[in-house]
Amino acid sequence: MKFEVTILGSSSATPIFNRNPTAQVLNINDKLYLVDCAEGTQQQMLRFDIKASRIEYIFISHLHGDHYLGLVGLLSSMHLNGRKKTLKIFCPPPLKEIVDLQLKYSETTLNYPVEFIFTDAVTRGIILENQDVFVETIPLDHRIPCTGFLFRQKKRLKKLIKERIEELHIPIPYYTALKRGADYEAPDGTIHKNNTLTIESDEPKSYAYVSDTLYSDKYTGQINSVSMLYHEATFLNDMLDRANQTHHTTALQAGEAAMKVNAGKLVIGHFSARYKTLNELLDEAQSVFPNTELAVEGKTFVISE
Amino acid sequence: MKFEVTILGSSSATPIFNRNPTAQVLNINDKLYLVDCAEGTQQQMLRFDIKASRIEYIFISHLHGDHYLGLVGLLSSMHLNGRKKTLKIFCPPPLKEIVDLQLKYSETTLNYPVEFIFTDAVTRGIILENQDVFVETIPLDHRIPCTGFLFRQKKRLKKLIKERIEELHIPIPYYTALKRGADYEAPDGTIHKNNTLTIESDEPKSYAYVSDTLYSDKYTGQINSVSMLYHEATFLNDMLDRANQTHHTTALQAGEAAMKVNAGKLVIGHFSARYKTLNELLDEAQSVFPNTELAVEGKTFVISE
Repeated sequence: MKFEVTILGSSSATPIFNRNPTAQVLNINDKLYLVDCAEGTQQQMLRFDIKASRIEYIFISHLHGDHYLGLVGLLSSMHLNGRKKTLKIFCPPPLKEIVDLQLKYSETTLNYPVEFIFTDAVTRGIILENQDVFVETIPLDHRIPCTGFLFRQKKRLKKLIKERIEELHIPIPYYTALKRGADYEAPDGTIHKNNTLTIESDEPKSYAYVSDTLYSDKYTGQINSVSMLYHEATFLNDMLDRANQTHHTTALQAGEAAMKVNAGKLVIGHFSARYKTLNELLDEAQSVFPNTELAVEGKTFVISE
Repeated sequence: MKFEVTILGSSSATPIFNRNPTAQVLNINDKLYLVDCAEGTQQQMLRFDIKASRIEYIFISHLHGDHYLGLVGLLSSMHLNGRKKTLKIFCPPPLKEIVDLQLKYSETTLNYPVEFIFTDAVTRGIILENQDVFVETIPLDHRIPCTGFLFRQKKRLKKLIKERIEELHIPIPYYTALKRGADYEAPDGTIHKNNTLTIESDEPKSYAYVSDTLYSDKYTGQINSVSMLYHEATFLNDMLDRANQTHHTTALQAGEAAMKVNAGKLVIGHFSARYKTLNELLDEAQSVFPNTELAVEGKTFVISE
């Protein structure tokens, strides 16, 4: 089952040449989940050949412009491109008011349903469960209400060992029971134990998206063992005071967070425009957590650790 | 005096690869006037090395997203980049409500003054006069209230003929009067006629920006002899019905409008995403008005006809 994330934007606050503000898109079992949607996100999707029509869910961490100003344009393009299927948007409550006001003055009635599901920036909660994943909020400590998002794959059913199934001529109606762990009793009364007929599916993977936040044990305590952690790393640690003032983190803190939450891999992003090159940020995070990579526009990370 | 326009976006409705929705920036005597501000305008300005800090005025034609969704991001970046000087925004009245709502929820108080001057989409009016230009609204006929903008350079003072001034040792305090047309009486009583001391400045140029509209005599009647006309040309004329339904124009109509208003040059833009290449649109407009060019991202047109 596909479980990967493509970076659409890696800059904080303002775009700079080559870097767009925050957005990323998860592909989970061939469904797309957009996470944050800064200005220019739809242009980035065109650039990296990601079809907006395939997005089923959008998650907005908070209402600073560098995380959501591309949303109304994207909704409008989906409308103009003939979308009919429901879109679910998980977001802070005021976002609906903002979207509605802009649609009102453009006299646009979207020709597809949009369902808003409001996040709570104080109390964690599961906001989505479908056949593939659970998505849980991660309350963060930013200047305005802000949450991260934790995506946990569901445990999949066991896989049939095709050769054994064919050899024993097991009828198709039995397959689901076998995948769920049942033994098989053949017409002659022989019992075939389940573990001779199936293998376990892959262990479920997980992905935590830690958006803008002051560094704190509160959110790291919630993320317990994660395959991949995306963590903002706005500054180098020599600007720790500035990070604290603005409720952001440093690359060093992102590395520490990855250690604490027992991450398989760390991806850092949300870089301040002051950093023309990113090597120092990477080095700093890697000094604590070696398996770190940079969020780079267009790069896809398979969540596999 | 500089009088030129740089195209930042040439597509209608949705961005497509290589084309961004509408925005353009006028440079008038080294002050920047931004006209419409679609999503991604600030990224386009970075790309073409146009400094947002130099923008003094922003003009928004109407509240369809492809003409203004980049505004809040731009205002926010100006704030983060330390702008202090006043910004004047000429726009339909509801835009202030939209901007205020987004600033409220991001808990942002801009550290520079923004002055909103509301346009009236029914009655034409001069909305700006400064030392360089008059700007007048052009009421258009679109699905929602929409105006174009007519920029007319002011007639400049006459230019002194430097050699004559030096030869006669005319003192500096006389210069302004001479530029305004006065004769000069020398200490010996000789009268030097103004036309021996000065030459006329260049004829004032003008630029009309015709945003989204149904083709109509109403607006062409208002634009009387213009150095350069920008006119939307969303469709080819074989889609005239669709143009009429959606209150847009065709490339043929743009050419006709340029004839009617006695334009020196025509630039067409706001191309539908259905046109992957633009040659046919250009050919169609040129069949009526030969001095036509395509709006192309990054291209600068000197307004000189």
